[in-house]
Amino acid sequence: MPVKLSILGTSAALPAKNRNLSAHLLEIDGHSLLFDCGEGTQFQLKKYKKKIHNISCIFISHFHGDHLFGLPGLISSMHLLDRVKPLTIYGPEGLEQIIKSIYSLSKTKIKYPIEFVVVSGNTKVKILENKYFSVYSFPLKHSIETYGYMFEKAKDLLNIKKQFVKSNKIPVEWFVKIKQGEDYIDDLGNVFKNKDITEPEKDIISYAYCSDTVYFEDLANWVKNVGLLYHESTFLNENKEDAKDKKHSTAQQAAMIANKAGVKKLLLGHFSSRYTDVSDFEKEAKPYFDNVILGKEGLEINL
Amino acid sequence: MPVKLSILGTSAALPAKNRNLSAHLLEIDGHSLLFDCGEGTQFQLKKYKKKIHNISCIFISHFHGDHLFGLPGLISSMHLLDRVKPLTIYGPEGLEQIIKSIYSLSKTKIKYPIEFVVVSGNTKVKILENKYFSVYSFPLKHSIETYGYMFEKAKDLLNIKKQFVKSNKIPVEWFVKIKQGEDYIDDLGNVFKNKDITEPEKDIISYAYCSDTVYFEDLANWVKNVGLLYHESTFLNENKEDAKDKKHSTAQQAAMIANKAGVKKLLLGHFSSRYTDVSDFEKEAKPYFDNVILGKEGLEINL
Repeated sequence: MPVKLSILGTSAALPAKNRNLSAHLLEIDGHSLLFDCGEGTQFQLKKYKKKIHNISCIFISHFHGDHLFGLPGLISSMHLLDRVKPLTIYGPEGLEQIIKSIYSLSKTKIKYPIEFVVVSGNTKVKILENKYFSVYSFPLKHSIETYGYMFEKAKDLLNIKKQFVKSNKIPVEWFVKIKQGEDYIDDLGNVFKNKDITEPEKDIISYAYCSDTVYFEDLANWVKNVGLLYHESTFLNENKEDAKDKKHSTAQQAAMIANKAGVKKLLLGHFSSRYTDVSDFEKEAKPYFDNVILGKEGLEINL
Repeated sequence: MPVKLSILGTSAALPAKNRNLSAHLLEIDGHSLLFDCGEGTQFQLKKYKKKIHNISCIFISHFHGDHLFGLPGLISSMHLLDRVKPLTIYGPEGLEQIIKSIYSLSKTKIKYPIEFVVVSGNTKVKILENKYFSVYSFPLKHSIETYGYMFEKAKDLLNIKKQFVKSNKIPVEWFVKIKQGEDYIDDLGNVFKNKDITEPEKDIISYAYCSDTVYFEDLANWVKNVGLLYHESTFLNENKEDAKDKKHSTAQQAAMIANKAGVKKLLLGHFSSRYTDVSDFEKEAKPYFDNVILGKEGLEINL
């Protein structure tokens, strides 16, 4: 079951030339999860031919407009396009009331059910779990209450070594149990260890979304060993005082978190509109964490 | 003082391929007036190189998202770009409260003053007047409370006929009064009629913005003889039942209003996303009103 991340917006605060506002779409087998929803997210979804009805959950990091102001329009469009299936929206306290006020203003009764789940707390919490994946929230440090999110795909079944099974005449009735991790015991009571029968377990697919935050080392504990870490990098180090003042990070700081957390890959984004060319963000991050890529509208990453 | 209208969005309800949501920008000598503000309006302003700080007034017709959901982002961007000068926002009752709730949610204190003016009433009312122009509101008939707006440029000073002034030795001290419409009386008490001294008065530049509305004949009285009438045409006549149900108009109905009102030019827009090619809207309107043009993103009209 492939998992694909699409970058819909990489601009911070203000839209910039060819850069849209924050939104990431994660697709897994017909489910889509949307992380943040800056103004224009519905246009980006349309541009990149993403089915909006596939979105089952939206995770809002915080209430600054560049992460939120596309939400009312997306909810409306789902309504106008006759959505039936429920939508769950995760975010800090207060979202439900404001969204309901907006629709009350226009006397619109949204046709499909929306469940609002309040995210809170000062540690990492599992907020969603099903047989395909789990999602966790954890607090970031920004000028207002802000949360990061981490997606973790459920373990795949193990792959059986065909040659081993054949040589040892393991009966087919045992296959499901073995794929689930059990040892095989033959009729004579001989035990065959699961690790000998199956291929080595693959790494669990995971992705963390960290926007917006000032640099703080504890964050590394919450995104430890994640497959793909998205960490905001609003500024370059030459503007690190701005980063500190505005509670944002630099590319170097994002790379330091990636390094400390031992993640596999780092994705940068949320670039301030003051930078027309963002290639320096990669250059600045590389000495601290080599496997770094720059977010770009339309970029798709297979996890 | 030239007056220019720029069309920023022509799509109804949902964004369509190459069609954005409702917004018209009227520019007059460094003042800009924005009529409606669908999601993405700030991107369109940027795309067409319009200075957002020039916008002094925003007129919201009603609270459906395709006319409103760009407003929070535009207000935020003005704030982030250090706007100082005041902004006045006209619209139905309830706008101030919702906008304030949105910024209270993100603990943002907008740096520049915003004045909200409630538009109401069931007839045409002058809501703004200065030495350059006036703006009127009038009720439309839609599924929720909705207003149209009419802009009227102040009369220009009259142009003096140079040859007449020379032949009759009219002293220069009289010029301002004559340009303002007064007759000239010479030292002997002879009266020279203003109409003989000045060029014929030009038509007053005017523009009316009518979106969204079902067809109703009284509207023609409120936009009588206007220079440019923008009238929504969400549907073609083949879908006139949809128009009636959803309280919208067809291209034919828009043209009938233009005809009845004796306007100079009709501009169509707010096309339903169901139509990929909108050229039939012009064809449908022409037999009822010949001087019709189709709205298109980026179209600029000198009034």
